[in-house]
Amino acid sequence: MSEPMMIVPLNTSDILKSAALRYPEQEIVSMLADLSVHRYSYAEAYKRSCRVANLLASAHLNQGDRIATLAVNHYRHLELYYGISGQGFVVHTLNARLFIEQLDYIINHAEDRWIFVDPELLPQLEALADKIPTVTRVIVLCAADQMPPSSNLTLECYETLLAAQSEQAIWPSLPSNTPCGLCYTSGTTGNPKGVLYEQGSTVLHAILSGGSQYLDFDEWSVAMPVVPMYHVVAWGVPFSAPIYGAKLVLPGCALTGPNLQTLIETEQVNQAFAVPTVWLTLHNYLQESGKGIESLAMVGVGGAASPKALVKIYAELYDVYWMGIWGMTETSPLATAANLTPQMDNLSDEDCYALQASAGKPIFGIEIEIFDAAGQALAHDGVTRGELRVRGPWVLASYFKGEGADSFVDGWFITGDVAVINDQGYMTVVDRSKDVIKSGGEWISSVALENVALDYPAVNEACVIAALHDKWDERPVMLITLRPGQAYDELALRALLQQRVAKWWLPDRIVVVQALPHTGTGKLRKMDVRDQYRHILLAE
Amino acid sequence: MSEPMMIVPLNTSDILKSAALRYPEQEIVSMLADLSVHRYSYAEAYKRSCRVANLLASAHLNQGDRIATLAVNHYRHLELYYGISGQGFVVHTLNARLFIEQLDYIINHAEDRWIFVDPELLPQLEALADKIPTVTRVIVLCAADQMPPSSNLTLECYETLLAAQSEQAIWPSLPSNTPCGLCYTSGTTGNPKGVLYEQGSTVLHAILSGGSQYLDFDEWSVAMPVVPMYHVVAWGVPFSAPIYGAKLVLPGCALTGPNLQTLIETEQVNQAFAVPTVWLTLHNYLQESGKGIESLAMVGVGGAASPKALVKIYAELYDVYWMGIWGMTETSPLATAANLTPQMDNLSDEDCYALQASAGKPIFGIEIEIFDAAGQALAHDGVTRGELRVRGPWVLASYFKGEGADSFVDGWFITGDVAVINDQGYMTVVDRSKDVIKSGGEWISSVALENVALDYPAVNEACVIAALHDKWDERPVMLITLRPGQAYDELALRALLQQRVAKWWLPDRIVVVQALPHTGTGKLRKMDVRDQYRHILLAE
Repeated sequence: MSEPMMIVPLNTSDILKSAALRYPEQEIVSMLADLSVHRYSYAEAYKRSCRVANLLASAHLNQGDRIATLAVNHYRHLELYYGISGQGFVVHTLNARLFIEQLDYIINHAEDRWIFVDPELLPQLEALADKIPTVTRVIVLCAADQMPPSSNLTLECYETLLAAQSEQAIWPSLPSNTPCGLCYTSGTTGNPKGVLYEQGSTVLHAILSGGSQYLDFDEWSVAMPVVPMYHVVAWGVPFSAPIYGAKLVLPGCALTGPNLQTLIETEQVNQAFAVPTVWLTLHNYLQESGKGIESLAMVGVGGAASPKALVKIYAELYDVYWMGIWGMTETSPLATAANLTPQMDNLSDEDCYALQASAGKPIFGIEIEIFDAAGQALAHDGVTRGELRVRGPWVLASYFKGEGADSFVDGWFITGDVAVINDQGYMTVVDRSKDVIKSGGEWISSVALENVALDYPAVNEACVIAALHDKWDERPVMLITLRPGQAYDELALRALLQQRVAKWWLPDRIVVVQALPHTGTGKLRKMDVRDQYRHILLAE
Repeated sequence: MSEPMMIVPLNTSDILKSAALRYPEQEIVSMLADLSVHRYSYAEAYKRSCRVANLLASAHLNQGDRIATLAVNHYRHLELYYGISGQGFVVHTLNARLFIEQLDYIINHAEDRWIFVDPELLPQLEALADKIPTVTRVIVLCAADQMPPSSNLTLECYETLLAAQSEQAIWPSLPSNTPCGLCYTSGTTGNPKGVLYEQGSTVLHAILSGGSQYLDFDEWSVAMPVVPMYHVVAWGVPFSAPIYGAKLVLPGCALTGPNLQTLIETEQVNQAFAVPTVWLTLHNYLQESGKGIESLAMVGVGGAASPKALVKIYAELYDVYWMGIWGMTETSPLATAANLTPQMDNLSDEDCYALQASAGKPIFGIEIEIFDAAGQALAHDGVTRGELRVRGPWVLASYFKGEGADSFVDGWFITGDVAVINDQGYMTVVDRSKDVIKSGGEWISSVALENVALDYPAVNEACVIAALHDKWDERPVMLITLRPGQAYDELALRALLQQRVAKWWLPDRIVVVQALPHTGTGKLRKMDVRDQYRHILLAE
């Protein structure tokens, strides 16, 4: 019997094509490296993505070949997302903040064929000039008169190549399981591993993550992904916003307080997406400058635990709804979200902030569960901690080239997070499995300690690690940076901690440091801190 | 190589299961046949759908068997939607307003195994008692003490059967192309044809039709599908509302002005869905009674052309956004929608109403096109008329049992509608192919004439048909019903028509009738009118 319903796989190319038809005039605004602002419409973006597709189609490439980008958030990068994936190739977003050795490993592991690169990021590729033999073309994302020189790479100009192509494309209809994107995990242990996204998983994730109740995009939305486009495709926003006709604001590489505040104000941004440290930076700038962010209604915050103190600040000082979201490179990434609900009307502000600071509830299509070491599902009582597992149609089933098979069990992906789930279904990540401090057989949460410390006015950032201990195996050590102009008193901080956590959780040492190391995506590099301070208690 | 992403097909059972987890307290309110109101939560609905699934699983049925319902809009019908389809069977919604002969044909064609029936609709089944041999069980949707007697059918009680089942179910994971629903077209020519929906097409349609910009459901929505649940699954609302946590109001069979007004007011309905005649009925009642519908913000209107006069009335008298939507049984049904857009701010009220009265633009995933008789795509200029075709992942590829193959060509479904598309992508159905009046080789639009007539105050309903004509082959004849208390003057109506359409479009006759015949879903039965008046001009 023939299929009753049409087999019409939804492809990434349908997203921009449909946006060009439905919202031809809607804008995409980019802040470029020289801080000038570029703006054009979805209709124009679509035509240029057609040119990219035609450029690829005219070359000797095989379907599924990896085409890399080394670029920040701007319109040309967006065109590449659609042109590459829509034509049946895999857009491999290289993380611009990685160490050269990691970039070397990743490009060779992915066997990238071409690399599209921002002029500003070219030095990183030049450092690898003789080490990436699979790469046959390096195309610089600029106009002919902006082309940088290179001592060791043959460069081609993006705009010159595009000008030679037709702005009409015939897109292939690609089966749902066709690979369309590749992103490597940051690899805090071992080598980075590749996560390959599919056409179907990408489009379904974009539809559901961008829809009502999660990102809630519509034609009145002005959405700014501050999270880089090389970091899990900017949480999917470049794919979800065009489905719903949202205006896109791409902030380039200039993620400073003043630049963000200016973009929010001039473009009337009402939804923005970034890790907590970005919102801390912006808050500090707003306090210094006295400037505002009146148009901003909601921030989607993931990538690290949301400090409740900052949730409160954004609500009370800026009237911004802080929506905690959680996901991983392996989950496309959106898996859970703490969206606004009618029930919140009946909660105290503090209870509401606590929910917003959680990871929220699974979005439609996603299942989460916590397990003990024996693989038994645990109670959803808001207290019991277990290993978090996740499943759903946009969750990884197998790393690129079959690596990391021990992360998959019984149809679940093992996240490596330790979490609690409450009776309403709200999940809170309490630690990375490897960040839990195992003190005399009991677990101490580094994240819980950090969150309390952030409520102490003088603490700007806090990082708690497991330090080796002769008697207890591991004991917590806290590193903090201070907020300028605020008095710091270790005893007062300890008193605050003592009010809020069990006595045996109190850090054995609190160390004030000038700065803490961050990853390219703004997360604390706990691994580095651990390396440096791991033996501090033994030495005593 | 193994699939990169998990293969987790989204099933209808995931919808209610997820709603019970995410929105356990959200309400489903039903008006029952005795006009009493039943209310319970998504959590309770889910448990009872589990009981239905267990009832089916415990019987000797084969996956894919058709299980029929003959019922109006209420909570038990909703439980059947989920329990039947989630367990891998096909929920076949029988149209309660069909003639007995059609019901006979459809039940036998579908080979229904069980029928769940409302007590009030039992007489229709009794009339078929010895004619439907595939049907092994008839289960009445009521409690034990409400069981009706039957002279010729063995009846079982729904509540008694459910009470014996567990309220926990293990749902099968069903591949995307598993059939889950069956609905017959009304069959204005030839026998009715079956449209078989799939798990994947149903869930995707629910996600996209319920999402931002179309029905735009969220936890603040109170959605009332007035359109019957036996008519293209109430336009998908019972599947889309739970995904987004909307409160559902199911109005039963009492679709009178007073009942609808009462439900809207007491349940604070803000979104409702029905054919235009329902909104005309409600408007007439509101004018008579002086009552209001203050909570109502939006009506989704399809199934027949939207009269612009009524769009204006709902905007100006009731502050309700009239969203024209278009689809067919064969398109699941939502295909296009005239949702509110920022561009409407720049239009005059009249231009805005014209857009709202259109069918709107294709929703994401759907493509539409108009073609001439030679199969060439036509201009999108708002004037050129062509045969409307549609395609997308929730559009039919083949009728049940392979019938009606001439409706499918080159990957398109041929709708049988004649339409225009304007340069903004808005589509307007100007006629059914068979309702166009072919006068001397030129086409006259019956719908256009009807819409002008409705702007004349005394005209309540209008129906234009093609009457046979000796000279011109066909000429238009208009039948109208009058609005009580308004003066009617044929010359004044003709003068209005003459201002708005070409002179050769003017009807040869205008006939005032006491009533016009309607289908069970409130559409004009033009076929019947045509039968009666087709020869009126020849007889002269």
